[in-house]
Amino acid sequence: MSKVAVVLSGCGFLDGAEITEAVSTLVCLSQAGIAYQCYAPDRNQMHVVDHARGAPTDEQRNVLAEAARIARGDIRPLTVLDEASYDAIVFPGGFGAAKNLTTFAQDGQAARMHDDVKAAVMPFVTAAKPVVTLCAAPLILALAAREIGLRGVRITLGAGGEPLAEAIAAWGQTHVPTPVDAACVDEERRFVSAPAYMYGEASPAEVFASVKAAIAALGGFLG
Amino acid sequence: MSKVAVVLSGCGFLDGAEITEAVSTLVCLSQAGIAYQCYAPDRNQMHVVDHARGAPTDEQRNVLAEAARIARGDIRPLTVLDEASYDAIVFPGGFGAAKNLTTFAQDGQAARMHDDVKAAVMPFVTAAKPVVTLCAAPLILALAAREIGLRGVRITLGAGGEPLAEAIAAWGQTHVPTPVDAACVDEERRFVSAPAYMYGEASPAEVFASVKAAIAALGGFLG
Repeated sequence: MSKVAVVLSGCGFLDGAEITEAVSTLVCLSQAGIAYQCYAPDRNQMHVVDHARGAPTDEQRNVLAEAARIARGDIRPLTVLDEASYDAIVFPGGFGAAKNLTTFAQDGQAARMHDDVKAAVMPFVTAAKPVVTLCAAPLILALAAREIGLRGVRITLGAGGEPLAEAIAAWGQTHVPTPVDAACVDEERRFVSAPAYMYGEASPAEVFASVKAAIAALGGFLG
Repeated sequence: MSKVAVVLSGCGFLDGAEITEAVSTLVCLSQAGIAYQCYAPDRNQMHVVDHARGAPTDEQRNVLAEAARIARGDIRPLTVLDEASYDAIVFPGGFGAAKNLTTFAQDGQAARMHDDVKAAVMPFVTAAKPVVTLCAAPLILALAAREIGLRGVRITLGAGGEPLAEAIAAWGQTHVPTPVDAACVDEERRFVSAPAYMYGEASPAEVFASVKAAIAALGGFLG
C-alpha cells in the first residue's frame, strides 16, 4: 500500500489550511486506498484571523495544534518528516501556504520557503517522488523547482492573472490555466497541482472534484 | 432548488464540530444540488481543547467565529435562523453537539438543548420538515422528540452501548444499531441519523459514505 505525507498549514483558509481542501484530500486518499500521515510546522501562525469578521485578532495560535483539529490529533511535527518513509508529499492550500509555509504574504516575489518546509519537501523533489499541491500551495512547487535550477515546470494556480500566477512566471516556471475540476501534471518532474479554491466562487462539490483529479494523478504515478 | 440550514458547533471534534463530517456534509449537499446556509451559536464554546495534546487549555473561543473557518466566513448567528426559509435542518457531529449545542457533556441524561438550539430546531420538528443529524448530534433528535411527547422514534448512534445510546433509550426513543456507511431513517417523523465517527476508527472514506447516505435520505424527503 502506498503511503504519503500530508502537510497542513493550520485550520482555516484565511490564516491556515483551507479546510474543505484538506478534508477532501484525506477523503480522496482514503477512497483511493492510499495511506497517509499528517504533518505540520510546530511554530506559531503568522497571525490569527477571525473568520466570521474577516479581520486579524491579537491571538497567537500554533500551526500544529490547529492543524490537529483537521487530523483528529494524529499529526506530527514537520521537522520529523522522513522522505524515506513515504511515496509522495501532498500540500492542501489556503492562505497558510503563503503565510505559514512560505513568506509570500509578506515578501511577494522575494518569498522563500520556511526552513522546515524546505527541509521536508526538497528530498521528495530530488528523489523524483510526486509532489501534489492544491490552490495556493503550488507556490511551493515553484520555489522548490527554482531551488534546484529547474525552469519551465508546468504549474497551475487556476485561471491565472493573480499575483501568485505572476510569481510562478517570474520564477521561471510555466503557469498553465486549468479548469476547477482538473489537475495540471508535469509528467517529467512528477509535480501535480489543482486549482480548488483558487476559483473563489467554486462550490464544495467542485473543490472536491479538483482534489479528486489531483489524487487521481498521484495514483497514476504510484501505480 | 431545495435549501437547508446547516448548524455547526465549532471547528474541531474535541470541542466543536467534527471537521470531516462538516465538510462532507457541505460537499454532499453541493453534489446533490441542495443549497445551504451555515449557522452557529454566537456565544463561547464550553471550553477549548488543544487537539495535538488532547487536553483543555485556558483559552476562550466563540462557536460562531470558529465555525466560520469551515464555512469560509459565510455563516449567520443561530438566533436569526427562520424555519420558513428552509426545507430541512442538518447537524454534523463532534463533541460540540454534547458541549455547545446541548448540555450532555455536563449533565448526561439530565441534558437539555441550549435555548438557541431549541428555538432553531423545534419549528422544523413541528412543521414535519426533515432533521438530519450525524455522529453525536442525534442527541438533538432525541431531546426534540421528547420535547413534544414522542416515544419510540428511530435514531442511531452507531453500534450502540455507549452513554449516548443509553440516553436515547432512557428518553423513550429507540436506538437502531447501524453500520458506518448507512443512515437510520424514521420515515414518519422525517428524522435522519448516521453514525460517521461514532465509529471512532472509521476512515475518512467511510465517514464520507456515512454522510452521503444521510444526505441521500434527505434528498428522498425533499424529492
